[in-house]
Amino acid sequence: MTASPNSTSLSRPETISLFSLTVACLTVLANTFQGDGAPLVASLALSGVAFSATFALIRWLGPTFIKSGLKGVDMSKHHKREIPECMGAICAVVYLLVIIVFIPFPFYKDIVAATSGGGNRDVILQMEHVQQGRLLHRFPHGKLASYLSAIISLQSIAILGIGDDLFDIRWRHKFFIPAFASIPLLVVYFVDFGVTSIVIPIPLQPYFGELFNLGSLYYVYMAGVAIFSPNSINILAGINGIEVTQSIIIAMLLALNDCLYLLTPYPHPATDSHLFSLYFLLPFLGVSFALLWYNWYPARVFVGDTYCYFAGMVFVVVSILGHFSKTLVLLLIPQIFNFVYSAPQLFGLVPCPRHRLPRFNARTGLLEPSVTPWTPERQPKKPIAWALKLLHQFKLLRVTLDEEGKFTETSNFTILNLWLVWRGPLREERLALEITTMQMVVGLFGLFVRHRLALLIFNSDNWGIMNT
Amino acid sequence: MTASPNSTSLSRPETISLFSLTVACLTVLANTFQGDGAPLVASLALSGVAFSATFALIRWLGPTFIKSGLKGVDMSKHHKREIPECMGAICAVVYLLVIIVFIPFPFYKDIVAATSGGGNRDVILQMEHVQQGRLLHRFPHGKLASYLSAIISLQSIAILGIGDDLFDIRWRHKFFIPAFASIPLLVVYFVDFGVTSIVIPIPLQPYFGELFNLGSLYYVYMAGVAIFSPNSINILAGINGIEVTQSIIIAMLLALNDCLYLLTPYPHPATDSHLFSLYFLLPFLGVSFALLWYNWYPARVFVGDTYCYFAGMVFVVVSILGHFSKTLVLLLIPQIFNFVYSAPQLFGLVPCPRHRLPRFNARTGLLEPSVTPWTPERQPKKPIAWALKLLHQFKLLRVTLDEEGKFTETSNFTILNLWLVWRGPLREERLALEITTMQMVVGLFGLFVRHRLALLIFNSDNWGIMNT
Repeated sequence: MTASPNSTSLSRPETISLFSLTVACLTVLANTFQGDGAPLVASLALSGVAFSATFALIRWLGPTFIKSGLKGVDMSKHHKREIPECMGAICAVVYLLVIIVFIPFPFYKDIVAATSGGGNRDVILQMEHVQQGRLLHRFPHGKLASYLSAIISLQSIAILGIGDDLFDIRWRHKFFIPAFASIPLLVVYFVDFGVTSIVIPIPLQPYFGELFNLGSLYYVYMAGVAIFSPNSINILAGINGIEVTQSIIIAMLLALNDCLYLLTPYPHPATDSHLFSLYFLLPFLGVSFALLWYNWYPARVFVGDTYCYFAGMVFVVVSILGHFSKTLVLLLIPQIFNFVYSAPQLFGLVPCPRHRLPRFNARTGLLEPSVTPWTPERQPKKPIAWALKLLHQFKLLRVTLDEEGKFTETSNFTILNLWLVWRGPLREERLALEITTMQMVVGLFGLFVRHRLALLIFNSDNWGIMNT
Repeated sequence: MTASPNSTSLSRPETISLFSLTVACLTVLANTFQGDGAPLVASLALSGVAFSATFALIRWLGPTFIKSGLKGVDMSKHHKREIPECMGAICAVVYLLVIIVFIPFPFYKDIVAATSGGGNRDVILQMEHVQQGRLLHRFPHGKLASYLSAIISLQSIAILGIGDDLFDIRWRHKFFIPAFASIPLLVVYFVDFGVTSIVIPIPLQPYFGELFNLGSLYYVYMAGVAIFSPNSINILAGINGIEVTQSIIIAMLLALNDCLYLLTPYPHPATDSHLFSLYFLLPFLGVSFALLWYNWYPARVFVGDTYCYFAGMVFVVVSILGHFSKTLVLLLIPQIFNFVYSAPQLFGLVPCPRHRLPRFNARTGLLEPSVTPWTPERQPKKPIAWALKLLHQFKLLRVTLDEEGKFTETSNFTILNLWLVWRGPLREERLALEITTMQMVVGLFGLFVRHRLALLIFNSDNWGIMNT
């Protein structure tokens, strides 16, 4: 059906499919240069091109990555062989190229207006007009600047992610990589918008008023989201496909949320923000599906930290610049749970081994919860022992004690291990599928809460720029 | 005097110097938040910080680069040992971070105006004001957009350059790397300015008028400059320090050119373009001097293609967005000569070995011209043989013939080898110094021509946005 895992060239059916897809997309793209332009259609078409390009490049460049030392061994397989690592870098580069080429499309209408139509471009223009260029026209420079700042943040995270994959930066250093990458976003937000007020829920309005200006705290909040989102996706990892599927689910739910604003009977004030969001999400879905093809069980490539950071930053960029970062937080609930649940190990209350991915049982071919061993000499302190036993009682951990009541092992604190504690040993792709489904169900519920219940505590929903 | 070449930590005097420099620069920086702000001073201060950061990071990260396979052997030394390669990536990352942090400074005045001073920021603003943010104010969005597009182009070249250094991309592919990186620049130019007219020299004005609209040809011209500049710096390479010194000379001459516009008795219409240029050049000089410290003979690190591409793209960015790309071409005369001179080998008229750097004579310790050998069976074709002999007669090549008049070897077609043909064998640092001096003399002469003689063929000099 598909080419053999070792093949580095596309099979004939693959070539034909990708070629047809690309030609179809480019045709659609060419047809958008009519009337006011159709940026959303153009974005969809470019996403198709992005899919084809990523699909082909991952196949072609795999051996080059291995030769340059970007490779890894899949621990959860019978046959351990080296496969290319850091393939997210290819996704990032294709994505960035597509999103850069896309820049003129959302502004096509304004460009045509400013140059008074294509027909007049050849005549020699008046001196004054030339000197000023299009600066005199009502060109949406603010929109352009925010679009560009998003690209800068995404490029920054790509550069830093590649650096991380190359040099294997220590955990406590890499935690701050997204903070650096979010600087351009925050700086341009500061320079160009500077809206730092939030809408106060109705019950609190008597105390704070309708709007409350968070001032510089608002930047701390945005930086917090920007640091959390990429890292949280990076730590929900360890089995084939899980990094990509969770990112695809979140991106699709964000896109669904955007569509809810576009399909209203009257033009919604936040339409532009959500179109902007779609322009960034659609090509991301394009490159991600291509990556998933190779990364799904049994994985033929690894995605690398680059992909996780990059995906997280795409979500940050659209939600901060589109002013719906609270919605993003709702969609990251499994990641938030995983992070909070991981905290005891991340912050050293419980010993943390180098890898916490589920343990592959070579005899059964199933994944089991991986564990942290305790020796009789090295036992948890009293309050921690008590907490661990409590977690065990609430089925939030598996604790094994010896006959003397001493700890022998505890399952590692990740949502993947916890799921295996609940569900028993599972095949790797089954675990990935279940976690992905859970992500989707939780996310859909989050969106439902956001759109149905938010009206109970806020005056009016979806206020455009203030809907932070 | 300096730390031993193998040391990866800073010596005490180095630490003290860098620390003092950083503290001094940060103090200056903090003092620029007064009145209308002083962006040029802030840029200088940040360049000092960039120097310190690059200096320290190159020292600290050297072993990490070697461990990740980014290493090379210096062929022109007695003791061949591995030293870190691709250190330009550190320069690029530090530079980008500095230039991103710098974004608010040129706009400080406008930000203060738009928020009606720092004192009022805390009061709860009117609904309408908040909804619009600063969009209603006369904020220079166009300037911001061009600043951001420059950053995007530089980040693109950094990503592609790192890819090149990692994967050792083939010459005919890497030639187009700068073309990809210049897309954001050209796209934003198209979206945001779209000025494609050039001023016609006086003698030609009767035929073409005062201004001539090149239309899409203007984009071809800009793409040409964008492809040429980074590549031309990348091929003038091969001895310690030469990539960095030529870049520093070009950057200093561009900065000198900018100062000529800033020091006019009346405010010049192109002042903003040239301030913009300085903001990008000063931090570049900061990181380059730090790199030169390690890369000058005897080199302790290599710069990698990343640095050459990056340097070339900095020049492209400032000259295209500052509308003085013709001036850049004047400063690249040695590179243009080197490219044209290299053409016979680049395009396969004469066989081209993998490396054309000058040959190190281990006995004398001097560099000699490297050669392409000819066998009696494989001789150049008639017209090429004739051309080679002609070049030899004009002292533009060294050709060695055997007693039968057959070619045995010809010196390789690079300016470095040609210089050695002219000057005889030289020590490596002497050759670097002489080429650098030549670059400076030619560049100064170019600037002289540009400012003194241009008035003979153009109506008025330095027309601001039209001065392309």
